[in-house]
Amino acid sequence: MAKKMTEKELLAKAKEPETLAMKYHPFYRGKIATAIKAPIRGYEDFSIWYTPGVAGPCRAIYKDKNNVFKYTNKGNSIAIVSDGSRVLGLGDIGPEAALPVMEGKAMIFKYLGGVDAFPICLNTKDPDEIINAVKWLSPTFGGINLEDIAKPKCFYILERLRKELNIPVWHDDQQGTALVTLAGLISALKVVKKKLKDVAITFIGAGAANVNIYKYITLAGANPDNIVMVDSKGILNQDRVELKDKEPIKWEICKKTNKKGKTGGIKEALNGADICIALSKSGPGVIKKEWIAGMADESIVFACANPIPEIWPWEAKEAGAKIIATGRSDFPNQVNNSLGFPAVFRGALDVGAKTITDEMCISAAYAISEYTEEKGLSEEYIIPNMGEIDMYIKEATAVGEKAIQQGVARIKMSRDKLQERVLSTIKASQQAVKFYMKKGFIQPFPK
Amino acid sequence: MAKKMTEKELLAKAKEPETLAMKYHPFYRGKIATAIKAPIRGYEDFSIWYTPGVAGPCRAIYKDKNNVFKYTNKGNSIAIVSDGSRVLGLGDIGPEAALPVMEGKAMIFKYLGGVDAFPICLNTKDPDEIINAVKWLSPTFGGINLEDIAKPKCFYILERLRKELNIPVWHDDQQGTALVTLAGLISALKVVKKKLKDVAITFIGAGAANVNIYKYITLAGANPDNIVMVDSKGILNQDRVELKDKEPIKWEICKKTNKKGKTGGIKEALNGADICIALSKSGPGVIKKEWIAGMADESIVFACANPIPEIWPWEAKEAGAKIIATGRSDFPNQVNNSLGFPAVFRGALDVGAKTITDEMCISAAYAISEYTEEKGLSEEYIIPNMGEIDMYIKEATAVGEKAIQQGVARIKMSRDKLQERVLSTIKASQQAVKFYMKKGFIQPFPK
Repeated sequence: MAKKMTEKELLAKAKEPETLAMKYHPFYRGKIATAIKAPIRGYEDFSIWYTPGVAGPCRAIYKDKNNVFKYTNKGNSIAIVSDGSRVLGLGDIGPEAALPVMEGKAMIFKYLGGVDAFPICLNTKDPDEIINAVKWLSPTFGGINLEDIAKPKCFYILERLRKELNIPVWHDDQQGTALVTLAGLISALKVVKKKLKDVAITFIGAGAANVNIYKYITLAGANPDNIVMVDSKGILNQDRVELKDKEPIKWEICKKTNKKGKTGGIKEALNGADICIALSKSGPGVIKKEWIAGMADESIVFACANPIPEIWPWEAKEAGAKIIATGRSDFPNQVNNSLGFPAVFRGALDVGAKTITDEMCISAAYAISEYTEEKGLSEEYIIPNMGEIDMYIKEATAVGEKAIQQGVARIKMSRDKLQERVLSTIKASQQAVKFYMKKGFIQPFPK
Repeated sequence: MAKKMTEKELLAKAKEPETLAMKYHPFYRGKIATAIKAPIRGYEDFSIWYTPGVAGPCRAIYKDKNNVFKYTNKGNSIAIVSDGSRVLGLGDIGPEAALPVMEGKAMIFKYLGGVDAFPICLNTKDPDEIINAVKWLSPTFGGINLEDIAKPKCFYILERLRKELNIPVWHDDQQGTALVTLAGLISALKVVKKKLKDVAITFIGAGAANVNIYKYITLAGANPDNIVMVDSKGILNQDRVELKDKEPIKWEICKKTNKKGKTGGIKEALNGADICIALSKSGPGVIKKEWIAGMADESIVFACANPIPEIWPWEAKEAGAKIIATGRSDFPNQVNNSLGFPAVFRGALDVGAKTITDEMCISAAYAISEYTEEKGLSEEYIIPNMGEIDMYIKEATAVGEKAIQQGVARIKMSRDKLQERVLSTIKASQQAVKFYMKKGFIQPFPK
């Protein structure tokens, strides 16, 4: 467990990356560019890549649209689409101000997944206009990553686009967070030797992430009877009829969960629970020590609000929690979306998946957990860190394999072939950055 | 003048690049990717580029939108937008089939101009929907290159977007072709020692390109009285009242040109003309030898239809033309859009131009012509070829300078500073490709 720093010290530490970000962003003027991926020996080669030669591939695609995956980069390109209406910890800051986040995400997609992701920050907040924009853009892209779009429109947008497009559409704040949390949860349960189907789980917060975590963990075997969810008004139960029309997804949860009919707030919801999954608001103090003390033995606490967890990890520990995970990189067990999306898209793109199913995500979670177990599970290692490339290979391969099994892949291949392809793409991407830095195409950080 | 090949031989030669294109496109699976442009020393650097550090740049842009140029790659990013409704020589083949062309264009933008251009092929053909899509996309991009969009909607789309966006919007089939043709024309007139204000000019074809060439050459000093334009129905004159409502831009030309009130077709239009600018339909035989013979002494013929010029160059020569330009790379004097757009956007982006004015394009044309004159003008060298990097530097600098002069630049700098910036960006881009090829990140062409 991390050494007890004062709250002031921890907050100061949390500010360091921002100070560096303000220094380095203007120096590099952004983080993502385009690159040429085919040879140019001399200007005459443009007659192959552009007019007149290019007419051949154009005609081949015109005859059969599926050929677009063969003759272009569509099969490795995705759009990171945001309207900037709910940017991580910053709220509704608009499309321009959201661009640094989307560029950062594109950078991670490229480095960790070898995926060519392009940031698309849209100057509209209307859900139907966002849907239209993405549909109009879709011929260019092999996948869509929705990002930082406010609730509840994000549910509607995701649902319609998944239905209406034949390329994977993903909302990282829903599926991505859910997948990584599930991975951590599976591993944590292995450490405390409890079974998912038996445990009592309490969700603090009923946002896009928690709603989706709920979905995945029940699909993975958790029993809804033993689940309790709390939103800002209190515990979800069948008395919360005000949600019926306004928030139908939450109302479904009211009906399906909380068999015991618990009422009250966080305190009551946590009482006796094996697991706490909090994705609510920045702490500390959102969850009190004594509430954690009221949980079952060997309890597991995910306190994932940013920038400060709902409860400081050492407080949770002192109150009796066995395993604690947060969203921060300076504590053990960081629930980090970057463990999910790069590999999920890598696997989906490599098999030409038409969609990303829930089962593909759950396979990804099990792959992450298996990898963690192979490395050696412990209370402070239930989730790998971003540096573990072998995890991405394993995860991407599992996702692609599941897509083939489920019949949503355009391209079929053996597990070995798939794994080899995944590995070579990700390795090449990371080596390219290293070479670029070495050769000065990417300049060193300024003093 | 090129050796007389048979038509069959010439057509066979024109097919060669397509054969190679069909072989190489599936090998590389596209031509353009994303690349990381800032250092990643280790995974901990993502805390600077992504959460939590990225919140700093986000807040700075939220406070002042102009900061998006400082903290992101917007200032070097453009979208190549097409609906695939009029793809070079192929017609309305749709957005997927247009993607290889747009990727090729993005490759040229990057290689010759150091511009990060991303292909956006839209799944709508409705002009207002295309306008909406581009407006929604605009926060991400520092410029828009419209491409291969059918006439007449391309005029309307360009006009509205130029008015409604505060970033450069450009339709290459209009402005790009016009700029390069004007450059060639200025040089050709120097060779034959005639003055633009005195010459009689005949346009064959009244499409997007010729309409814009007409605009630029009159702005550059040509006298509309001495201009005659022919469309598929014959010479434009004041009797062509059917155009009044249907094609208002053509009707303007009917009123402003052809002082002598010429009637008839191409033959009559060319009689006595100093200059023929043909951008009509693939030849040969669209323009007959004897019609060229009827032109003035030391006549200049631009026969730019693709893939076959309206008249073979040697036929025009035999009929008395002094200077002949075509759209083909296998004859001298290729009118090649690639001489225009990469440098125009390079210059416009480097000064943060809010628009690309006609005057910036005309400056570009004069810069190309000056460069050509410095290299040594001749009948067979009125237009440089794509390999001449110094031309791009000169042209981009002229464009940026004009933007500063006209008050449409967000960033002011000296000519020397601008030239240095242009040069280093373009050089770095070309060196990167060479380096990538050398190191095997771009594999050699397959056998």
